[in-house]
Amino acid sequence: MTVRDWQGEADARARACLTAVAPPGDLWLGAMLAEHGAAGVWAGLVAGEPPPSVPVEEDEDPDPEAWARLRRRWDGWSAAAARVDPDGLLGESAAAGIRFVAPGDPEWPGRLDGLDLPGGRRSHGLWVRGGGDLRNLCLRSVAVVGARSATAYGEHVAAEMAYELAEQDVVVVSGGAYGIDGAAHRAAHANGSTVVVLACGLDVDYPRGHAGMFADIARTGVLVSERPVGATPRAKDFLIRNRLIAALTPGTVVVEAGRRSGALNTASHAVELHRVLMAVPGPVTSAMSVGCHVLLRDWQAGCVTCADDVVAQVGAVGELPPESGPVRVSAHLDAESARVLEAVPRAGAGPAVVAAASGTSLDVAMRSLGLLAAAGLVERCRAGWRLPR
Amino acid sequence: MTVRDWQGEADARARACLTAVAPPGDLWLGAMLAEHGAAGVWAGLVAGEPPPSVPVEEDEDPDPEAWARLRRRWDGWSAAAARVDPDGLLGESAAAGIRFVAPGDPEWPGRLDGLDLPGGRRSHGLWVRGGGDLRNLCLRSVAVVGARSATAYGEHVAAEMAYELAEQDVVVVSGGAYGIDGAAHRAAHANGSTVVVLACGLDVDYPRGHAGMFADIARTGVLVSERPVGATPRAKDFLIRNRLIAALTPGTVVVEAGRRSGALNTASHAVELHRVLMAVPGPVTSAMSVGCHVLLRDWQAGCVTCADDVVAQVGAVGELPPESGPVRVSAHLDAESARVLEAVPRAGAGPAVVAAASGTSLDVAMRSLGLLAAAGLVERCRAGWRLPR
Repeated sequence: MTVRDWQGEADARARACLTAVAPPGDLWLGAMLAEHGAAGVWAGLVAGEPPPSVPVEEDEDPDPEAWARLRRRWDGWSAAAARVDPDGLLGESAAAGIRFVAPGDPEWPGRLDGLDLPGGRRSHGLWVRGGGDLRNLCLRSVAVVGARSATAYGEHVAAEMAYELAEQDVVVVSGGAYGIDGAAHRAAHANGSTVVVLACGLDVDYPRGHAGMFADIARTGVLVSERPVGATPRAKDFLIRNRLIAALTPGTVVVEAGRRSGALNTASHAVELHRVLMAVPGPVTSAMSVGCHVLLRDWQAGCVTCADDVVAQVGAVGELPPESGPVRVSAHLDAESARVLEAVPRAGAGPAVVAAASGTSLDVAMRSLGLLAAAGLVERCRAGWRLPR
Repeated sequence: MTVRDWQGEADARARACLTAVAPPGDLWLGAMLAEHGAAGVWAGLVAGEPPPSVPVEEDEDPDPEAWARLRRRWDGWSAAAARVDPDGLLGESAAAGIRFVAPGDPEWPGRLDGLDLPGGRRSHGLWVRGGGDLRNLCLRSVAVVGARSATAYGEHVAAEMAYELAEQDVVVVSGGAYGIDGAAHRAAHANGSTVVVLACGLDVDYPRGHAGMFADIARTGVLVSERPVGATPRAKDFLIRNRLIAALTPGTVVVEAGRRSGALNTASHAVELHRVLMAVPGPVTSAMSVGCHVLLRDWQAGCVTCADDVVAQVGAVGELPPESGPVRVSAHLDAESARVLEAVPRAGAGPAVVAAASGTSLDVAMRSLGLLAAAGLVERCRAGWRLPR
């Protein structure tokens, strides 16, 4: 599914492993990856070598204490790297239907290059789960975010807006949380596709109550995260995650937000990235609309009341290419994988049966099944592999 | 109370009479008044003379049909002028506590000169009722307008905002209608002063249900109109009235407005006059907030949620002079009128008693009582004149 040469494959594998030892968006790691390549950095970490040098801004203070801190950070990563089993990480991920997408891969969303600005916390790689193609889904997309403790009004507006955006083939990107995020995802999924950007491993299902929704969404949409399988979310992970929501889309709509809502953090990323910032007004008597009114009053956010308003504002900057709808990964399968997929029975079968039915070797069938699982097109069952329910 | 020379008095008297024959803001009449003076124009009308010539724009089409229409208009005014009894009009007005304020009078609000732009329907004169000084009240003022068929939410927000504006010595100007206007007037009056701009004669009390509120407001605030005593409002009068609301104030707040609300007409005047336009957001599910959201989205209206927001936005353009509060007409009384006012007993007395008590002649006392009544400081009763209840 992904076309990587030998070096690309090694780098992608190294980036996948790095997600298990270093925090997403780490600026120093980003500089090392740019200078020395992911495979080299990873090899150095595993071998317990000292950190490779990176170009330093002339006006940067060569504070010895700062260097000591960096060294401790590197040593921590190095110790963690020694405990990572690359095959195990990738195998466990594939078994859970999770694939890794690295910069340069066909599924890598070009808009993330917006994070490549001075001090921009560029993503080093994304874990992706689901039948949608992340890049294609994000082409014609909008972020719809808001408070977890939303009001009935906010959830109603989020759902209506998301449903109507889906009607116009606009993919809704959000953070998978309770409240506005959940209402937007659910309505978008009911009428089209949606992208869930999580702050935890894609097998972790945080919040728990959204596990069923995430499984549903994985059929046609995608879940995406910078954190590896098994990673639980810490408070700061949500903030670093928010930059991805803003960066994946040409515009962000804040539906409801209290005075200190995390949605305002996403809004600030949208402004930094020069994306379209929009806010939904609400009763001035509602604490959950205070943040939206601040955005309208002080941040020059566009006032949007419905999907048409959103499409008009984002479309006005030429960022909603006319497209008939999201493209599924299955459309991009190579001939071998497509044959293997066709041979997988709905009720499930072992790899040998699939290999025989598809006319390929057991070896090829097993590799294809792994890739198909990573793309969310097949899933494990007691009999072996089956089409997702 | 007003300082006019002989010519000024004759012109003011003519302008007062003109309100009884020509519609407010008539452009052609405005051009004639500027060219020939009000007294001359009025004399010509009464004498049945042909219309005096006014300078015509070079590129204006001397369409003979247009001239015939103008001539019919003039002849209609002329016929009506012949039926006007100037002493009767002014006497009846004074008896109802209504004074006439002409351009150049001390009480004339300077901001109305903003209407003196090409095609601007400048006011030819204002009827004023109440104990406030129109000019002083408007110095530090804001228009708060909105739908007649307001929701409970809208009336709540209008009242809260008006009350808090009064707290900050900002006078609320509005149109006296049911709904938002009434809620704003009532709350402003409860905590300070307010100005009611009507589309009918100031003795007409339209809408009827607000007669009591208007009487209350007249004590410390003012009611103002371009129409003479007895004039009932027609639909178009509200639109021409709306320009006054926008012109009297440095900024207009629209609290609630349907898609075709008259408040949007006031908003368009505010924009034309380069005043600050503000809108209160509301639920996007409310038809009564649709107009406000259009103003926020497409008219670059400022988003305001409370009085502080309004003061910040209007204050930012330097249009809210710091002042300790509105000034009452009584502060400007000449010594004679002040003595007469002091002599009027609460229970009421005839002019002879008042003259004796104030140590003035009957003649002076009667003239002063007329002026005091026009300023809303005394009112007629069975015994003669008394202080307003």
